[in-house]
Amino acid sequence: MKKLNYLLAAACVVFTLTGCPEPTPESTKSDDGMNWQFKAKWTRGKDGVIRTTVPARPAGQKHVLELKTPKLDVVRVGFVGLGMRGPGAVDRFLAMKDVGLNVEIVALCDYVKERAEGQNNKLINKGLKPAAIYSGEDGYKALCERDDIDLVYIATDWNHHVPVALYAMEKGKHAAIEVPSAMSVQDCWDLINMSERTRKHCIQLENCCYDFFELNTLNMAKKGVFGEVIRGEGAYIHDLSDFWNYYWKKDANDKLGWRLEYNRTHRGDVYATHGLGPVCQVMDIHRGDRLTTLVAMDTDSFIGKQLVEKATGEKCTHFENGDHTTTLMRTAKGKVIEIQHNVMTPQPYNRKYQVTGTSGFANKYPVQGYAVQGKTSTIEGIPNHENLNAHGFLPADAQQALVQKYTHPLILEIGEKAKKVGGHGGMDFMMDYRMVYCLQNGLPMDMDVYDLAEWSCLAELGYISMSNGCAPVEVPDFTRGHWNDIQGYKMYKTEDTWY
Amino acid sequence: MKKLNYLLAAACVVFTLTGCPEPTPESTKSDDGMNWQFKAKWTRGKDGVIRTTVPARPAGQKHVLELKTPKLDVVRVGFVGLGMRGPGAVDRFLAMKDVGLNVEIVALCDYVKERAEGQNNKLINKGLKPAAIYSGEDGYKALCERDDIDLVYIATDWNHHVPVALYAMEKGKHAAIEVPSAMSVQDCWDLINMSERTRKHCIQLENCCYDFFELNTLNMAKKGVFGEVIRGEGAYIHDLSDFWNYYWKKDANDKLGWRLEYNRTHRGDVYATHGLGPVCQVMDIHRGDRLTTLVAMDTDSFIGKQLVEKATGEKCTHFENGDHTTTLMRTAKGKVIEIQHNVMTPQPYNRKYQVTGTSGFANKYPVQGYAVQGKTSTIEGIPNHENLNAHGFLPADAQQALVQKYTHPLILEIGEKAKKVGGHGGMDFMMDYRMVYCLQNGLPMDMDVYDLAEWSCLAELGYISMSNGCAPVEVPDFTRGHWNDIQGYKMYKTEDTWY
Repeated sequence: MKKLNYLLAAACVVFTLTGCPEPTPESTKSDDGMNWQFKAKWTRGKDGVIRTTVPARPAGQKHVLELKTPKLDVVRVGFVGLGMRGPGAVDRFLAMKDVGLNVEIVALCDYVKERAEGQNNKLINKGLKPAAIYSGEDGYKALCERDDIDLVYIATDWNHHVPVALYAMEKGKHAAIEVPSAMSVQDCWDLINMSERTRKHCIQLENCCYDFFELNTLNMAKKGVFGEVIRGEGAYIHDLSDFWNYYWKKDANDKLGWRLEYNRTHRGDVYATHGLGPVCQVMDIHRGDRLTTLVAMDTDSFIGKQLVEKATGEKCTHFENGDHTTTLMRTAKGKVIEIQHNVMTPQPYNRKYQVTGTSGFANKYPVQGYAVQGKTSTIEGIPNHENLNAHGFLPADAQQALVQKYTHPLILEIGEKAKKVGGHGGMDFMMDYRMVYCLQNGLPMDMDVYDLAEWSCLAELGYISMSNGCAPVEVPDFTRGHWNDIQGYKMYKTEDTWY
Repeated sequence: MKKLNYLLAAACVVFTLTGCPEPTPESTKSDDGMNWQFKAKWTRGKDGVIRTTVPARPAGQKHVLELKTPKLDVVRVGFVGLGMRGPGAVDRFLAMKDVGLNVEIVALCDYVKERAEGQNNKLINKGLKPAAIYSGEDGYKALCERDDIDLVYIATDWNHHVPVALYAMEKGKHAAIEVPSAMSVQDCWDLINMSERTRKHCIQLENCCYDFFELNTLNMAKKGVFGEVIRGEGAYIHDLSDFWNYYWKKDANDKLGWRLEYNRTHRGDVYATHGLGPVCQVMDIHRGDRLTTLVAMDTDSFIGKQLVEKATGEKCTHFENGDHTTTLMRTAKGKVIEIQHNVMTPQPYNRKYQVTGTSGFANKYPVQGYAVQGKTSTIEGIPNHENLNAHGFLPADAQQALVQKYTHPLILEIGEKAKKVGGHGGMDFMMDYRMVYCLQNGLPMDMDVYDLAEWSCLAELGYISMSNGCAPVEVPDFTRGHWNDIQGYKMYKTEDTWY
């Protein structure tokens, strides 16, 4: 028995030395119809950190950082999804000529034919050539298969964002996708691989990156007004109680509409990009820094359940999305980003957008304010108030002077025109303008497919964190090794110059 | 060999069935002098959650929830610590007579004798009997050993809070401790066990619970203005750059002063109670709900290191406390509390104090605002603005009417007098007033020793979370089984009535 005991002991020693046996990968169980978009495989390490599987970059495939594609004299566009956000995009494209850009609306597609035709009237009324009309479940495929389209502009419901974008790129088109532009980690990898393989742009239509306060603050950050930016906060806090009923319903049996149904069946911050995008740009994410660890924590569903009960007249015992979700992320350089999501409780609209730096501070909601260390006399041209310090926001005149001094060049270039065209006060137009401008000039996009992945992965990674007791989850390096190649966020004006 | 293989396989099966072998408890390593206050033993469960060891309640010992002690005709007080916060407390106690309360300042103690004597002049100038003076490292012991003192009021540096309080209770005195009132999880258990054993109050001097906006909002919450409160935010964001040099230094070799030194050597939210206290009261923590899970995430130290280098003239390679620390906590009822700490970067003072409810919302910084669902006409006496909804804060007149309607009874009772006495605009006086009032009337304290533990444990639990990759950490049930005995937070006016 002595030898036997020794061997048994040895067997145990193996376990002791190596710690816990490697766990087998787990993935989301969607047997109950909940979280059906989330499919990532993951393992929990001995350090307690959950890691999703990172697919190797296929052989011969290269990254698309700062991807340049051939210049386009005219950007020929097909729109897919003309319900809520699509019609405004059509209007904005019709205004591109006024700012010296050339676009042609070649095709219009919606599940409901009448909606596509309705938009076509705008072209006809302007004396333009009518666009081709596509409709039904597969209308977008026929649109993508045309050979006279450069860009597919996707403003469908969330569930159709990725299938349409993948098909568009597969068929040789650039894809621009409303947010959230990917619903799962797998979607992120699929879009990245498709963009890398086809060398087509995969752009997310994140308009909040082009709002005036955000652009000016980005410019100030790049010019060093805040010192080193060490923390950013963003949010989408928007009581949607007046809106739920206006999201598209498939048929008479669909009592909730797609958006409430999506929230009912998915946990996590499912709408993070408005808050996260502008903050990531200020913090140079995958341009010198990268997100590494994420933890998320939500409240239970209190209002969500009530909404379902009101809409269906039946008891709702299970609503996945917590009323308020908070996600914290740490970066490779020891900085932190916090993002919140709440579309349920009554409170003022709030995207936060807070930038904390080693020598200054910016905050957008509920009041716009800047604070800078020491006397503002250190910044040329800013009124010098005696005893002014960063314990309070700058007085109105100093703030105005600061904004004037650091107005983002894009606002100087197109801000007034954008306000006239409209779309959330002009930011939507500046977004579309920049995309068309870069496509025409063969320049890298302001937002690339890795931004898209980083800003969209929160939903599933947060879900994994929360369904495992708020465990830390590794944020994949979506660039697969190239997050530190570029130093500093840039919006290209020419090949050699940028804002 | 067949039998041997079978046995080996069996040995492995044991591991497979039970999962990973139970880990042995770990505790903080303080070999490098860092985090030396943190000593909690903990284990990480198979679910990835870290749990600290909860000591069993000693046999025969009972909880001190709603502890009542014999009425005191006069509250005889000894002050320990008369540097920064102590002198103001002496002033406030000297004003108690004006509001009908009876106190006697029996003893004054400080490490530096002159500081104690300086305060005594205030008594002498008022024609009162001079207090006994104690000083030096052990002065507080002699003070606590007197038999004519009911209450020891502790406003020393942080490191002396707990030793003095334990000694005071051991010697039969109630202890009131400036914040943070416990520096570690072990401190929390020591204070709880001492209070439970001696049946003496252990009170934290958390003044922000008595600020006007917080008190009114607490009253609104209790009256249902916000519906069910599902989330609270608090913070201590205060750029201390102008203050670091004023914290006590032991000798000429002490270049940093105790507070910067404490931050240099301790990670985690080491000053959480100003933000956490008022939020916990609104959310009925250990009065129907309890904190269960905590995760924390901080930035690296950017400013902290610079401060040390400036003060010492030497390179600082290691500063434990991150410039900005964020802590998230979930409750048993599925609610969330978020607390932030930043004493480093230049930005406006901010304690946040944000209350999110199912039908209303309150926010203190940077602007005080309330939002309530639907038309305010549903609240009697509040101006009815057409189309008013919770998408914006109430207009000034409606907000004023709301505050007037729900002014906290304590403010009605003592608010104006408190403003005159002062101490952070009056809140310090209301805090001391309530403590003396409850001691004189034999009523439970507004803040008990479990509050103290819950509001102070964040530092070490956050440290454990962050030094383990932002792992979830269980918040102990400091009541040891009684968190749900009391329903709703109360401030007692009489034995049978409360605010």
